[in-house]
Amino acid sequence: MVVSPAKNKQHHVVIIGGGFGGLYAAKTLANTNVNVTLIDKRNFHLFQPLLYQVATGTLSPADISAPLRSVFRNSKNTQVLLGEVTDIDPKGQKVFLGGEVVQYDTLILATGANHSYFGKDHWKDLAPGLKTVEDAIEMRRRIFSAFEAAEKESDPAKRRALLTFVIVGGGPTGVELAGAIAELAYQTMKDEFRSINTSETKILLLQGGDRLLPHIAPELSEEAKLSLQKLGVEIQTQTRVTNLENDIVTFKTGERIQQIASKTILWAAGVQGSPIGKILAERADIERDFSGRVIVEPNLTIPGFKNIFVIGDLASFSHQNGKPLPGVAPVAKQQGEYVGTLILLRLQGQTLPEFNYNDVGSLAMIGQNLAVVDLGFIKLKGFIAWVFWLVVHIYFLIEFDTKLVVVFQWAWNYITRNRRSRLITGKAAFLDTQTINNNNPYQAAETAQHTVKV
Amino acid sequence: MVVSPAKNKQHHVVIIGGGFGGLYAAKTLANTNVNVTLIDKRNFHLFQPLLYQVATGTLSPADISAPLRSVFRNSKNTQVLLGEVTDIDPKGQKVFLGGEVVQYDTLILATGANHSYFGKDHWKDLAPGLKTVEDAIEMRRRIFSAFEAAEKESDPAKRRALLTFVIVGGGPTGVELAGAIAELAYQTMKDEFRSINTSETKILLLQGGDRLLPHIAPELSEEAKLSLQKLGVEIQTQTRVTNLENDIVTFKTGERIQQIASKTILWAAGVQGSPIGKILAERADIERDFSGRVIVEPNLTIPGFKNIFVIGDLASFSHQNGKPLPGVAPVAKQQGEYVGTLILLRLQGQTLPEFNYNDVGSLAMIGQNLAVVDLGFIKLKGFIAWVFWLVVHIYFLIEFDTKLVVVFQWAWNYITRNRRSRLITGKAAFLDTQTINNNNPYQAAETAQHTVKV
Repeated sequence: MVVSPAKNKQHHVVIIGGGFGGLYAAKTLANTNVNVTLIDKRNFHLFQPLLYQVATGTLSPADISAPLRSVFRNSKNTQVLLGEVTDIDPKGQKVFLGGEVVQYDTLILATGANHSYFGKDHWKDLAPGLKTVEDAIEMRRRIFSAFEAAEKESDPAKRRALLTFVIVGGGPTGVELAGAIAELAYQTMKDEFRSINTSETKILLLQGGDRLLPHIAPELSEEAKLSLQKLGVEIQTQTRVTNLENDIVTFKTGERIQQIASKTILWAAGVQGSPIGKILAERADIERDFSGRVIVEPNLTIPGFKNIFVIGDLASFSHQNGKPLPGVAPVAKQQGEYVGTLILLRLQGQTLPEFNYNDVGSLAMIGQNLAVVDLGFIKLKGFIAWVFWLVVHIYFLIEFDTKLVVVFQWAWNYITRNRRSRLITGKAAFLDTQTINNNNPYQAAETAQHTVKV
Repeated sequence: MVVSPAKNKQHHVVIIGGGFGGLYAAKTLANTNVNVTLIDKRNFHLFQPLLYQVATGTLSPADISAPLRSVFRNSKNTQVLLGEVTDIDPKGQKVFLGGEVVQYDTLILATGANHSYFGKDHWKDLAPGLKTVEDAIEMRRRIFSAFEAAEKESDPAKRRALLTFVIVGGGPTGVELAGAIAELAYQTMKDEFRSINTSETKILLLQGGDRLLPHIAPELSEEAKLSLQKLGVEIQTQTRVTNLENDIVTFKTGERIQQIASKTILWAAGVQGSPIGKILAERADIERDFSGRVIVEPNLTIPGFKNIFVIGDLASFSHQNGKPLPGVAPVAKQQGEYVGTLILLRLQGQTLPEFNYNDVGSLAMIGQNLAVVDLGFIKLKGFIAWVFWLVVHIYFLIEFDTKLVVVFQWAWNYITRNRRSRLITGKAAFLDTQTINNNNPYQAAETAQHTVKV
């Protein structure tokens, strides 16, 4: 099948990816005189910044998703297609979805990024990341299954490994996961078990850099660290994971090597441009940065192809202050709007100055009544930052789709201090504890565990 | 591991299954002087009557679930265990969870029922049923993927098969599914596609008996039929499916054999007691009925074992009017409460008269503003029945866990006429249309399709 704007001779813009970048590009082009085809592997836009709340049982996937068809229902120039792009022909102006071909006049590539396991791709199964709905459901399954298995486990060492959670990466996702698991273990679930005491849960957050939340002001990093420690999270900075094997995490802080036995290892580190970026780079003979992101021109096109834009997490844009813009939703959103506007202006023979990111600040939720917000001109922490975080997220959720139900959900959770969405679904709900046995370096790990305290 | 009430010499009640039967038995025994162990494969109670709303994109799984631990948080005599019972030793008073053994004084078996494929178990993959959260997500994936694939399909015959939905079984689940898919196709999504016209969708409901909703008064069955037809659903009664193969459904009405090509076949027929019922029957040397349900005594025990109760969908109870009680939530709930009370009375040397089901009536949702309600003394239809259906379901949802969020969700959906929860998740989101090709009896099926109209 060939999808082309055959009905008329209008300019055909193909957008690949319905994340923040693709969504806002398509919104900018909605109901204009171009034809738009928005292609995504999924039939919904995902509000990724809240994915950790799915992983920890506060929200359901649908609460943070909007069906793409629904978003563009009233935009008659926009066709949404479910499909996975397998190849791109920049000279022929074609994208391929398996056997299907889609012809474009202008292409916007906005397929985002995945976690990087720093070359150890087999760690993915041992320590799942958090990029998709399936990732979140898998994390949720592992977190809640660990407590369930611990309730049935009589061996103290195995029980300890089941009640040990290691989170790798101290950016917003890692911080938010650690805070949420701490609240689960020490507050929400503390009266719900009969054999185990969930306050014995150990939550260890490992950060490669010298502080948490590196994109935020140092005093707020410190504040986040203190808040997490107060919640019960142990934090190790300047620490790299060197091995994952048999439920033992080996990590290195400076020259000091430690081990800890853990059944639940969660990955929130590293960035790697999505695979289609590599294909585009090969076909168009252009460069990618060390994270596999496509290096873009100041106007977000790629060298040699004025009609191909790369935006969002997949783009490496260093024209503003020498280092790439962070992979966050506001960057993707502004780039999507910029590219949409530029395409419309070009059709009128006009253009735009180069893309300039208007930094709206950074924020991270730590727990109930606890957050940090860095707006540059003002820095907030604690309750006031938490309220600010809520308002900002509610605003965004409402803007992209009227998700008032989330607000209601949060209010209800706040009042009841409960988490309703902790379903263990998908694969068999039972954790295999067979791999935890005395042939493993268990005693060593147990001893090492005590040296972990910070 | 052996779980036994070793801490004290209190009577130990083991309940297997956290559906309506097990849940209400455990609630009746909460905070009494018996020890209760509630074992379920899942960590949540599922409000099964609303599962069809998950399958059709209105609600999320968590909206109709309650974490069992959360429900029994304040009942200190109740331990919840996640596990799958693999065997029962009635004489030794033990249940086995794989290698684990749980000793009981009294056992309540409440593991429910599955769909019956009438011996054609390989049809399960071709026509998924609707008993679990995973079933609902799989149905949702198939329903929404079919529309997505149709949008990309240029072959008219294949497109027609993608836009044809066959629902097997005209009980409440079949009726509710048919109504919800009709609303999706003809209302919710009608402006969201660019290549297909979703009002060309064909929805065929096949019922073995001579009318829909056999448990309800005949005039309400007729009303349900008329309402569904008005929504656009085609109905065939006295019709059996005789073959499912290569996306072709073959079915027989009297002597007339018809075929229809369909990519989405949904199963809502037949009842079969859960497999553990078979194991119990073998071990205790007792009888099951033709649907594999355990035939129980008037007090819900099994012959020969006064300390083993079977309740809910797994029980075949014919003592009231000669035919087994229907497999509906109110029966299970009342049986759970009866058994809980009987156990407590026995410990005081007392007993109860035999179980007597207090029929609270039947109801089924057909669509927005459309339902049928049969309370025996009064019969309702249309808008008033719909309001009644809402009130009853909201009441039950609130009783077992404060799920006000569902009410909010419904209100919001009602106002916007949207369905937010239509995520295609899990397996690859793409339907394989390769099996639909011209080597299949396609032309025949297409011709036959026209004879299907009622």
